[in-house]
Amino acid sequence: MLKLGLVGCGAIAHTHTANIVNHLKGAQITQVYDVFSAAAKKIIRDYKLKAEIAPSIDDLVNSPDVDAILVCSRNDAHVEPILAAIKAHKPVFSEKPLATTLTDCQKIVAAEVKEGQRFVQVGFMRRYDPFYQQLKETIDTGKIGQPLMGYCRHFTAEPATNYFETPNMINDAFIHEIDIIHWLFNDDYNSVQVQFARQNSLNKNENLTDPQIATVKMKHGAIVNTYLTQNAQYGYDVKCQVIGEKGIAELPDMPKLEIHQAGKIYHEIDHDWTYRFAEAYQLEMQDFIDHAQNNEAPAGPTAWDGLIAAVIADNAIKSQSSQQAIKIELPEQPQLYQSK
Amino acid sequence: MLKLGLVGCGAIAHTHTANIVNHLKGAQITQVYDVFSAAAKKIIRDYKLKAEIAPSIDDLVNSPDVDAILVCSRNDAHVEPILAAIKAHKPVFSEKPLATTLTDCQKIVAAEVKEGQRFVQVGFMRRYDPFYQQLKETIDTGKIGQPLMGYCRHFTAEPATNYFETPNMINDAFIHEIDIIHWLFNDDYNSVQVQFARQNSLNKNENLTDPQIATVKMKHGAIVNTYLTQNAQYGYDVKCQVIGEKGIAELPDMPKLEIHQAGKIYHEIDHDWTYRFAEAYQLEMQDFIDHAQNNEAPAGPTAWDGLIAAVIADNAIKSQSSQQAIKIELPEQPQLYQSK
Amino acid sequence: MLKLGLVGCGAIAHTHTANIVNHLKGAQITQVYDVFSAAAKKIIRDYKLKAEIAPSIDDLVNSPDVDAILVCSRNDAHVEPILAAIKAHKPVFSEKPLATTLTDCQKIVAAEVKEGQRFVQVGFMRRYDPFYQQLKETIDTGKIGQPLMGYCRHFTAEPATNYFETPNMINDAFIHEIDIIHWLFNDDYNSVQVQFARQNSLNKNENLTDPQIATVKMKHGAIVNTYLTQNAQYGYDVKCQVIGEKGIAELPDMPKLEIHQAGKIYHEIDHDWTYRFAEAYQLEMQDFIDHAQNNEAPAGPTAWDGLIAAVIADNAIKSQSSQQAIKIELPEQPQLYQSK
Amino acid sequence: MLKLGLVGCGAIAHTHTANIVNHLKGAQITQVYDVFSAAAKKIIRDYKLKAEIAPSIDDLVNSPDVDAILVCSRNDAHVEPILAAIKAHKPVFSEKPLATTLTDCQKIVAAEVKEGQRFVQVGFMRRYDPFYQQLKETIDTGKIGQPLMGYCRHFTAEPATNYFETPNMINDAFIHEIDIIHWLFNDDYNSVQVQFARQNSLNKNENLTDPQIATVKMKHGAIVNTYLTQNAQYGYDVKCQVIGEKGIAELPDMPKLEIHQAGKIYHEIDHDWTYRFAEAYQLEMQDFIDHAQNNEAPAGPTAWDGLIAAVIADNAIKSQSSQQAIKIELPEQPQLYQSK
Repeated sequence: MLKLGLVGCGAIAHTHTANIVNHLKGAQITQVYDVFSAAAKKIIRDYKLKAEIAPSIDDLVNSPDVDAILVCSRNDAHVEPILAAIKAHKPVFSEKPLATTLTDCQKIVAAEVKEGQRFVQVGFMRRYDPFYQQLKETIDTGKIGQPLMGYCRHFTAEPATNYFETPNMINDAFIHEIDIIHWLFNDDYNSVQVQFARQNSLNKNENLTDPQIATVKMKHGAIVNTYLTQNAQYGYDVKCQVIGEKGIAELPDMPKLEIHQAGKIYHEIDHDWTYRFAEAYQLEMQDFIDHAQNNEAPAGPTAWDGLIAAVIADNAIKSQSSQQAIKIELPEQPQLYQSK
Repeated sequence: MLKLGLVGCGAIAHTHTANIVNHLKGAQITQVYDVFSAAAKKIIRDYKLKAEIAPSIDDLVNSPDVDAILVCSRNDAHVEPILAAIKAHKPVFSEKPLATTLTDCQKIVAAEVKEGQRFVQVGFMRRYDPFYQQLKETIDTGKIGQPLMGYCRHFTAEPATNYFETPNMINDAFIHEIDIIHWLFNDDYNSVQVQFARQNSLNKNENLTDPQIATVKMKHGAIVNTYLTQNAQYGYDVKCQVIGEKGIAELPDMPKLEIHQAGKIYHEIDHDWTYRFAEAYQLEMQDFIDHAQNNEAPAGPTAWDGLIAAVIADNAIKSQSSQQAIKIELPEQPQLYQSK
Repeated sequence: MLKLGLVGCGAIAHTHTANIVNHLKGAQITQVYDVFSAAAKKIIRDYKLKAEIAPSIDDLVNSPDVDAILVCSRNDAHVEPILAAIKAHKPVFSEKPLATTLTDCQKIVAAEVKEGQRFVQVGFMRRYDPFYQQLKETIDTGKIGQPLMGYCRHFTAEPATNYFETPNMINDAFIHEIDIIHWLFNDDYNSVQVQFARQNSLNKNENLTDPQIATVKMKHGAIVNTYLTQNAQYGYDVKCQVIGEKGIAELPDMPKLEIHQAGKIYHEIDHDWTYRFAEAYQLEMQDFIDHAQNNEAPAGPTAWDGLIAAVIADNAIKSQSSQQAIKIELPEQPQLYQSK
Repeated sequence: MLKLGLVGCGAIAHTHTANIVNHLKGAQITQVYDVFSAAAKKIIRDYKLKAEIAPSIDDLVNSPDVDAILVCSRNDAHVEPILAAIKAHKPVFSEKPLATTLTDCQKIVAAEVKEGQRFVQVGFMRRYDPFYQQLKETIDTGKIGQPLMGYCRHFTAEPATNYFETPNMINDAFIHEIDIIHWLFNDDYNSVQVQFARQNSLNKNENLTDPQIATVKMKHGAIVNTYLTQNAQYGYDVKCQVIGEKGIAELPDMPKLEIHQAGKIYHEIDHDWTYRFAEAYQLEMQDFIDHAQNNEAPAGPTAWDGLIAAVIADNAIKSQSSQQAIKIELPEQPQLYQSK
């Protein structure tokens, strides 16, 4: 039974904890920490955890009662427990983003390089979604030839919060496509551009420009457009269509009954992401647990993937000002991540 | 320019006349006849026909100003103009059914046999529908292997008239599947059975049992169920699914925009048959015209097909009383129809 | 942690054990029994169970180390452990069928009635499938009106074994629809009929008549046709379409990538049932475990459902001889099962 | 019977002539002209036209035996017969493009303005396609709210000719979307940009950059990306998806049988455009004929639409060099075209 220390006890911590308690095998949460001790107490109570509240992040990470660490704290607080975990040679699962600055991402990468080992898995759960996996496999087997172009939709019916503003369209929405596209296309980013389309009059937030279109070009020339809105009204709609040299492969709609009624032949589309990615959240964590139990490095998105996402997101947000394409410059990829 | 004599000027005559005037090539209506002369006058006026009203069916059929005959009169009045046309060696298109009794159908067949030539085309327009044609071709090329089973839906949103009663479900609805199934399956009928399913409380007609399921077995063993309702509410829905030894082939829905809206991904389905079979009505008549112009026998459904439909329909109506399967006994097929 | 005693260690026992070990929460297998002790040893070894081999069914059922029983033995050996479990007031999950004779089913029902409590859950896993559940909910909320007709396909690409013969089409295939149809339609069976369609020349088994069509009529008049084949070639295809007074609801295809390639727009269909019902197998067992842990009677299919399935299956097999409809006579439903 | 004079007797002239002879009503070709008299003779022979060969364009246009003119000559030869027809106050249908230079387009517009009447219809047939019409209507009725973004695919399986080079991707492919997008979006163009995606290694033409993505921004902010390839391999695939404030509307696939076979559920996609737009070609010409017969100005795409297409296409080709967005400057729209 893998003993997990949980850092940060907010909404996403509840999602992971519920999965660990109700669905996943082989792990239990033994220590929790939150800057607000009430949050720590609440998560123990809500899920009847047999866990203690650690006095500090450092205590939690280094406790003999903790084998691996889950980082669900505020985005700018990820770096501390991650670095501590690397130092302690313990596997660490961090929610996306890896960190909020390139500097912090580079610190994490440098720490792993120094230890000569990978410990970090970043919570880009889409890579575990069975349909993205089918898409990856379809591309890799050459069934549609080399991928040349892509078209993605990342639509939510309504904004998650009132505080969802223009840069959140990148940091909280497009970030998922950033991680997915270079993985699917087996290529590095050459440039990123964000443009604002005609504004949706149903968008009630003055600080949110909606919709936006993010365009990336890859080193080998492929171009992918991602259409982004938080005000789609009709439902939660995530699509990815990859156009290759001799065919197209596209994510399916989630299965629902086919209904004939009142002049329509239809199936429903969900209002939010819960159903769409519930399985992916479970699979990513189970995979993290399984590798940790086997004393293997995590198999999921690495610190280097986290760094790439941070760089592209930074430049995408920069592009929101000019709406011009920005050339991407990445640090050199360390050997440690090339083997993967 | 083929000169057509039109016998019977009701609703279906208007459909054909509108097509001849507005869409088809190579024919004009030169003479019309109806037992109600007002109906004859009206159709001339409505479509600005340069046509005369014939004093009798016989005059119309034998007029030197008439090359071919369209029979759109009441079902029990088809036989007279058809026999006259055969005698006059003129091509004759008759709306379904060929006749209302087996005796009349046999008279027509005997008349053609006597002349040693086919002149009759029966208005089973579905054979001209591009999708039924694709289905026929798919079966005939062996793509799904020998056809073993079938499932059809023949649903209208609401009854065409208040006088649509239990036997009409056979004579006006199932009659289409009767003609199509033996054509698609390249086989003869062995038995027919009609059963009544749970009654639809939205059916307002006490003399209509709705829905019904008609089951036919073919000589080679294939079984096809046709689900019949005149109260589907949601739309006009005709489907045909053929299950073969190694696959299924099925008619598509008619194409409509795919819409994402208000929690649904949908396309519309039409309320009535107009759009679904408009093209088939044009194609069957154009084909009749073209063959007549080339002095060729009609290529569409024959008098023998009309006789088969009459026999099966009679027995299906008989089965409505007992809900038991009834064995089909057909007269021997004359040589004239075997060559086809 | 619920302690489970497993009776019978064959193929389906492996499926359940793998789920309990790898996916489900709150239960462990503590005792196993098989008439062949090698099978019992093998399952312990394969899944590294911390379980003992019980010397007899009775010892296993009554062991203080067993809270609930799983019956995965041969069909005709279900009745003994089930009756023992009822006597011991322990929850018992039995694979379908409940028993192989009506007499045995009645014994089980009588035993529960005598105890005044339900202990038995029968392994009709389709009721736990999310899509059948959506279908049930759609019908029950009245969205399509009262259900009037149904059309099901139960197709496997090829027979599971060389010993799959004509009656297996009922006992191993149609049995699933038998359980599902009366549940979906909220109605009892009035009659059952099995007919043989044109035989598939690709069927290599002389003792298997394939395909067959099973027709049930319900007390309120609804008719459902189930098309059955073990030689569909193209894939595993289970469909259920329910036609109500104002609409149709139909199970979706399983989601797969939409591919455009080589003149086709397609998605794949699986070759076997593994993917289609994997989740249902997990959900039925988790639900059994959860209710057992809470000292509640099972919520899944009851012994009475098992008895109904046995009666219909018996009559369906009888109908295979005559191909005629057979009227269903059920014993009176005890009060115990009416409350559910 | 409308008497048509045909200028230019190449491939597209054959398409229109075949339609006029075989499918359309109310018109006949009475005069033909081609710089190569052999081509003129051939079209008369091929379709058994009762038509004379005119000695010059001017003779043809001004012949009392010609009521309206069809211009199917080389693109740079459209302007002469169009100007002659306007001068003669005869309706003129011109194949796209209206002319090859902005100057020529302006001459045509100026000629109509001078006469105070519209005579020209440009052959953008997609506006007559039933599905684009549904799309237009869906947008105009507000069902999906204001249109904000669009995504189009214009894919052919293989290049039409060996001479299909980089600029042809605009002039012969994207030109259709140019006409459609401003019509659908009820808006004017603000900028156009063409980018080259990763090149398709299956493209055998060194002078063709393939694929390309053309991006237009509209005055009200909407952005539409059109993905263009002449080497899609899998089929002819034209799609248009419009994303509005509360929903999406998208062109359907053309209807084909749904087939289950060999592990796939599929429908076919055509190899070329013939089937996709056959009806649109007929409808545009019938509409031109009907308006001409009624002495009404054409209802289809105007000379002004032709001018807009020429301007956008010119700038798109310019953008192929820089791959940068180019701002669109249109002449002021004359009153004559605003009323439409």
